[in-house]
Amino acid sequence: MAMAARSATSTSISLATDNTPTTNRTPLLAPALPAKDDATTDESELKRSVDQYKHIFAIHSQPRTSTLSHDSVDSPSFIGFRNLMVLVLIVGNLRLVIENYMKYGVLVHLSGSEFRRDDLKMFFLLYALIPTHLFVGFLIELVASIHARGAKAKNQKADIKDPKLRVAWRIIAFAHVVNATLSLGVANWVVYYKIHHPLIGTFCEFHAVIVWLKQLSYALTNRDLRDAFLASAPTPPLYASAPYPTNITLSNLSYFWWAPTLVYQPVYPRSPSFRWSFFLKRVGEVIALSITIWFLSAQYAVPVLQNSVTAMGKMDVVVVLERLMKLSTISLVIWLAGFFALFQSGLNALAECLKFGDREFYTDWWNSGSVGTYWKTWNKPVNHFMRRHLYAPLQGRGWSSQSASIVVFTFSAILHELLVGVPTHNIIGVAFAGMMFQIPLVALTVPLEKMRGSASVIGNAIFWISFCLVGQPLAALVYWFTWQAKFGGGGERGYGLA
Amino acid sequence: MAMAARSATSTSISLATDNTPTTNRTPLLAPALPAKDDATTDESELKRSVDQYKHIFAIHSQPRTSTLSHDSVDSPSFIGFRNLMVLVLIVGNLRLVIENYMKYGVLVHLSGSEFRRDDLKMFFLLYALIPTHLFVGFLIELVASIHARGAKAKNQKADIKDPKLRVAWRIIAFAHVVNATLSLGVANWVVYYKIHHPLIGTFCEFHAVIVWLKQLSYALTNRDLRDAFLASAPTPPLYASAPYPTNITLSNLSYFWWAPTLVYQPVYPRSPSFRWSFFLKRVGEVIALSITIWFLSAQYAVPVLQNSVTAMGKMDVVVVLERLMKLSTISLVIWLAGFFALFQSGLNALAECLKFGDREFYTDWWNSGSVGTYWKTWNKPVNHFMRRHLYAPLQGRGWSSQSASIVVFTFSAILHELLVGVPTHNIIGVAFAGMMFQIPLVALTVPLEKMRGSASVIGNAIFWISFCLVGQPLAALVYWFTWQAKFGGGGERGYGLA
Repeated sequence: MAMAARSATSTSISLATDNTPTTNRTPLLAPALPAKDDATTDESELKRSVDQYKHIFAIHSQPRTSTLSHDSVDSPSFIGFRNLMVLVLIVGNLRLVIENYMKYGVLVHLSGSEFRRDDLKMFFLLYALIPTHLFVGFLIELVASIHARGAKAKNQKADIKDPKLRVAWRIIAFAHVVNATLSLGVANWVVYYKIHHPLIGTFCEFHAVIVWLKQLSYALTNRDLRDAFLASAPTPPLYASAPYPTNITLSNLSYFWWAPTLVYQPVYPRSPSFRWSFFLKRVGEVIALSITIWFLSAQYAVPVLQNSVTAMGKMDVVVVLERLMKLSTISLVIWLAGFFALFQSGLNALAECLKFGDREFYTDWWNSGSVGTYWKTWNKPVNHFMRRHLYAPLQGRGWSSQSASIVVFTFSAILHELLVGVPTHNIIGVAFAGMMFQIPLVALTVPLEKMRGSASVIGNAIFWISFCLVGQPLAALVYWFTWQAKFGGGGERGYGLA
Repeated sequence: MAMAARSATSTSISLATDNTPTTNRTPLLAPALPAKDDATTDESELKRSVDQYKHIFAIHSQPRTSTLSHDSVDSPSFIGFRNLMVLVLIVGNLRLVIENYMKYGVLVHLSGSEFRRDDLKMFFLLYALIPTHLFVGFLIELVASIHARGAKAKNQKADIKDPKLRVAWRIIAFAHVVNATLSLGVANWVVYYKIHHPLIGTFCEFHAVIVWLKQLSYALTNRDLRDAFLASAPTPPLYASAPYPTNITLSNLSYFWWAPTLVYQPVYPRSPSFRWSFFLKRVGEVIALSITIWFLSAQYAVPVLQNSVTAMGKMDVVVVLERLMKLSTISLVIWLAGFFALFQSGLNALAECLKFGDREFYTDWWNSGSVGTYWKTWNKPVNHFMRRHLYAPLQGRGWSSQSASIVVFTFSAILHELLVGVPTHNIIGVAFAGMMFQIPLVALTVPLEKMRGSASVIGNAIFWISFCLVGQPLAALVYWFTWQAKFGGGGERGYGLA
C-alpha cells in the first residue's frame, strides 16, 4: 500500500523507469510488516514522509531477476539487436566502399570499345536466325495436323497403332529432333568459336537455350494433343477455345514465342488489360538494376576477381578463402539484383505486354527450408518445363521420384554447363558438377525442412551458404581463373586493372 | 472439377510446387467451358487423358501475381533474408579475421611486463585504503545517531528547527563532505600523477567513484532517516526490521559496501539461498568474457587505433571515417561483451554471494526507442542513484523535469570525464562533451519513441548509431590519439605494433 503511493509520485518523474511497481506486491522475502490498525492513515502518512524525505524511499523494493538470466520468466525481445545487425551490415560495407574508393578510385567507364565488331555482328545474326527454328517446328506441326485431320476424317476413333500413322508420327518426331538439334548445335558452335566476349556469348546462349526449350515443349505438347485428338480423349477445359488442330496457327505460335513461359499451351490464362504505368515501372526497374549490376561488377567484383588470380595460381588456401568471402557479398548482391531485374521486373513487363495472366515466375524461395524447395521455387518457368516434359512423363513410365529427379538435375546440369562453359570458352565441367552436387544437398536438407523450429533455419542457412556464399563466388572465381589462364590479362577487353 | 483431379495427381510428384490449386477455381479470364451433361464422367475421362498424355496438362491454369508485386494480396515472409543477413555478417567479419591474421599474425602475448611495479603498488594501496572512507562515514553516522537518540529521549517529537540540533546536523554534514571529497580527491590525485598505465588507472578510478557514490548515498539516506526518526514519520515497511538508528551498525554498512547497488537502504530484498552452480557459472562467464575482451582488444582494436594515428594527425576526413567504421564493429563487440561480463555475470555473481534479491541491474536497453530510454535502462545502479539522490530531490524542490535531467546529465558528464580523462592523463573534455551531447539527443528521440511503427525503429537506430557506432569508437580514437601525442609510441608499454 505504501509503495503504491510512492509509485504514483515517481511516475511523474521522467527519469523513473517503466517497471516501478504500481501495485504494492508485498516483497516476498521482506521482513513481516508490523501490524497496524489503520492502513489508510499509515499509507497517507508514509506518502507524506517519503515526499518530505526524498532520500529514503526503497528503490530496491522486491526481489527481481536480470532480464538475460535463465531465472527470468519473460524472455525479452531482441528486436533491437536485429536493428543493430542491419546497421553493422550497412556500416561494414560502406567502409569497404570507402576502402575500395581509396584503393582504386572510380573504375567504371563508358565506352563501347570493349565489344568487338565481329562479336556484335554474330550476336544480331543469332538473335534473328535462332527463332526461325521455332517456325520450322510450326511447319512440321502444320503437316502433322493436316495428316491427323485426314486420319480423323477417315476414322472417327483413329487407331493409334495403325502402322501407316506410326510411320508418319516417327517422321514428324525425327524432323523435330533434327530441327531442335540444329538450332542448339549451330548456336553453340557460333558462340564457342565466333563470339569472343563472354557477356555477348552469354546473351546468345541464353536466347538459344530458351528457344530450344520452347521448341521441345511445342513439339511434345502438340504430339500429345494430336494423340488425344485422334483418340477423342478430352483435354483441359482451358484449351476449349483452341482445340487441336485449330491451335496450329502462326499467331498462336507467335504468342508462345514471346510469352514468359517455356511450356506450350494452346491457351493461357490472360490478364484483363495492358497497364502503361505498370509496364513503365517494370521497365524502369530493369534499366536501373542493370546499371547497378554493371556498376557493382566493374567497381567491386572485377578487382576482387583480378586480385584472386595470383592466389588461385599459388593454390594458397587461406588467401583463396579470404578472396572467396570478399567476393561472396558482392556476388550475392549482384545475384539478388539480377534475380529481381529478370524474374520480377523483366518477366512482368513482358507479361504485361502480352496480357499473360500467370505471373507466378517465382515464389518466396528466400525462405526455402531445403535446397530442393529453392530449386522448385526460384525459377518457375524452368521448373514448369522440367515438371511437365521430363519429370511427370518419367513418373508416368514408372520411374521413382528419386530417379526422375536425378534425370532432371542431370539435364539441368548439362544446360548450366552450356550456359556458362560455352560463352567463356571453357567447358571445364564446374557448372555441371555444381548442379550435380545439388542432388546430395537436396537429399541432405529434406529431413531438415520437415523438422520444425531451428532445423528449418539450418536448412535455410545451408541453402544460402551452399548457393550464394560458396557456390556462386567459387564458380565465378574458377571461370575467371581459367579465362585468364586461356586468354591472358584481358586488359584490352575492358577487364584491365593495374 | 477437372483441375482438382489433376492436382490430386500432381501432389504425388515431389517436383510439384506447393501452390498447385487443390480446388477448381474456374480461371477468371478463361474462355467459357462448353456445356456438358455428365460432369463426373467428364472428370474421370479427363483424368485418364492427362494421365496418358503427360505433356498436355495446363500448368498455367489461372491468373496469378508475382510474390513481390504490389498486386499481390499476401505479403510474403522475409525471414530467409534475416537468416541471410546473419550469415553475411558472419562471413564478412570472418574474412576480416583472416585478413587481420595475414597482415599481423598473432598479436596477443602473455607477459606481465607491461605493468610497472609502481603502478601495481599504487593499485593495491588504493584498493585497500579507499573503502576506509566508508567506515569514517560510518563513524560520523554513529555519532549522529547517538546524538539523535539523545534528542529523541528528551523530546518524543523533536523539533527539527531546534538551533542546537541544527548546528549538530551541519557539523555532521560538513564532516561527510570533507570525508567524501578527500576520498575522491586523493584517489584522483594518485591515479593522475602516480599510475601511468591507463588500464590500472581505470580500475582504480572506477573503484574510487563507486565508493564515493556509496558514501554519498549512505550519508544522504541516513540524514533523511534521522529526520524522519526525530519527526516520528513513517519509513517504508521494508525497513521495519532495522529502523533508524538500529541500522547504524558495522555489519549493516559492510553489506552495503559489497552489495551490487549504489543506493543505501537499511534493508534490501533478499534471495532465499546461495546457489553454488549459479555462482560458478557467472564467474566462469566473467573469466571467459574478460579473456575474450583482452584478445579482441589486442588483436583487432589496437592495430586499427594504431593505424589511425597518422590519419588523425593529417585530419584526412575520409580516412578517419573509414578507420572509425572499421573500429566501430570491434568496439561494439567489446562493449557488448563488457556489458554482459559486468552487468549480467559480474553483478549477478556478487549478488548471489550476498543473497541480494533485486537483480534488475539493467532491462532490455537494446530495444530502446529513444536515447533517454537507453540511459534509464542500461545501468540501473547508477540510474537508481541519480533518481533517488539527485533527480527526485531536485523535483521535490520544485525543479522542472527538464532542468533536473540536465543536472543529472551534467553530473554524469563530470563523472565520465573523471573515469576516462584521469586514467589516460588527458582531461580534454571529450567524455564530458559526449555525455552533454546526450541531452539534445534525448530531446530529439523522445517524440520518435512515442510514435508507433517505423519511428521507434528510427529512434532505436539513432541510439545505436550515436552511441555504439559513432560515439564510442570516436571517443576511443580521440583518447588514443591524445595519449600517443602526449606519451609517444608507447611501444615499451605493450601497445607496440610495427
